Amino acid sequence: MEEERRRVERRLERLLDELGRGPSVIEEAMRYMVLDAGKRLRPLLCLWTHDALEGVNRDACLDVACAIECLHTYSLIHDDLPCMDDDDMRRGKPSCHKKYGEAVAVLAGDALLTLSFDILVSTGERWKIAESVVVNATRVVARAAGTSGLIGGQVLDITSDAFEPTADLVEKIHAMKTAALISASMETGAVLAGAPAAERERIRLAGVWAGRAFQIVDDVLDLESDGKTLGKTPGKDVRDGKLTYPSLVGIETSRERARTLIERATKELDGRPKAGLLVTLLNFMVERRA
Amino acid sequence: MEEERRRVERRLERLLDELGRGPSVIEEAMRYMVLDAGKRLRPLLCLWTHDALEGVNRDACLDVACAIECLHTYSLIHDDLPCMDDDDMRRGKPSCHKKYGEAVAVLAGDALLTLSFDILVSTGERWKIAESVVVNATRVVARAAGTSGLIGGQVLDITSDAFEPTADLVEKIHAMKTAALISASMETGAVLAGAPAAERERIRLAGVWAGRAFQIVDDVLDLESDGKTLGKTPGKDVRDGKLTYPSLVGIETSRERARTLIERATKELDGRPKAGLLVTLLNFMVERRA
Repeated sequence: MEEERRRVERRLERLLDELGRGPSVIEEAMRYMVLDAGKRLRPLLCLWTHDALEGVNRDACLDVACAIECLHTYSLIHDDLPCMDDDDMRRGKPSCHKKYGEAVAVLAGDALLTLSFDILVSTGERWKIAESVVVNATRVVARAAGTSGLIGGQVLDITSDAFEPTADLVEKIHAMKTAALISASMETGAVLAGAPAAERERIRLAGVWAGRAFQIVDDVLDLESDGKTLGKTPGKDVRDGKLTYPSLVGIETSRERARTLIERATKELDGRPKAGLLVTLLNFMVERRA
Repeated sequence: MEEERRRVERRLERLLDELGRGPSVIEEAMRYMVLDAGKRLRPLLCLWTHDALEGVNRDACLDVACAIECLHTYSLIHDDLPCMDDDDMRRGKPSCHKKYGEAVAVLAGDALLTLSFDILVSTGERWKIAESVVVNATRVVARAAGTSGLIGGQVLDITSDAFEPTADLVEKIHAMKTAALISASMETGAVLAGAPAAERERIRLAGVWAGRAFQIVDDVLDLESDGKTLGKTPGKDVRDGKLTYPSLVGIETSRERARTLIERATKELDGRPKAGLLVTLLNFMVERRA
């Protein structure tokens, strides 16, 4: 896992060097948030799904994985803004607007979102794969990031006090805010591996379950951890009156639910000789302590 | 011009209906800012460049034009935010954060940027054109929107008081902040028309000149107009101590400079029987009063 993370890290650094030619403060803010930080969960899911399906486009897939990490980082930067969740800590250091101010943080987020699509649509020419594959992967990412995914989930999250606090609502928020992009990470891995439609759909679904499990565990860890292991402000969800899964059904039921979801996800990979790393990663997503 | 604008308007409405499936408040904020507003300059430039080069992909080009308008609207929403230019008025009505609050404004901008790429990469399948054309057009837009274009220009703009106020710096800001996307509008029109590389490059350059001319006139109008015809807060640049072209070289020299730039741009279209509308539009960009 460490080795693969380092590979992602090196490639992110290269892509930021190559494509970043803007004023220094914005390039610095982007690097500060993207590099040397994060679990790189989404890139690993993308790469190891590709490998599990015995794909042969690993270089191209690494770029797609990095694009998704850039997009994920943009969403963290904007979520942390004072007008949103107002969080001072992220990935174990001061959040982007704390370090560079609000204006640069908004722009660094915008820039990472834009860069993500730039990386995606450059993949075909760079690695000589069919542009139709590139377009399919890019569309998966765009849908996951839009108002029916990531952004829609954040809207529901910040307006959730206007609704009845039910497990259904929390699950809907989790599905959009977290599971959409995690699922897209796996689905793009499948697209890059050239998976047929039915297989791609099974992977997409497994990704949705894994993503929901991941967010449930995130909510639990927010309650249980201290800031040092968590890398962001702990206990913040509850203090902000946020709707979380454990606050509705309790910690034990939450952990059980997460395990059940991950079991469903890993079952989709049964009988695949190359799925070992991916299955390990999926289990790590619910067993982790930070 | 009115007829073409209505066509863009109807297509924008359709695309927002089709692709928008998020929580109602964000869809409403996106529609509020995109529909029934704006000169639609960039979409018209894209479409009429395509026509000037006798392209045959008008339906696909209309979608690309709408994608660029969504992207332009995102940049307006984020530029108006309190942490940026803090502007209360836009396109003749309260700006997005004034009407929906800051959080929704940030997210509506994010959503329009994402939607823009979604529209772009859906063009090939929708209109049966080669995915390589789609990828080329999308890459042009991504580069123009990134840190060496739109975003980089905004960074320079908000940090410009740290630099020596020279005409060179103003021109650099104009080139990135405004000319990059205006040029991309024309270049994507050329890409959709299947223009060969040398022709595409000439159109790109003409777009850069036209974009710089447009921004010079914008600065002049900010000084001369009242809020009603301008659709945004007039005189704001000066009050904010912003670096503008007329504040450095005077209004008359600015207008002359803009005319010279537009002449250079229109010269690139000499001898093209179908370039009439585009030439009219380019001249309108410097002769307009709002």
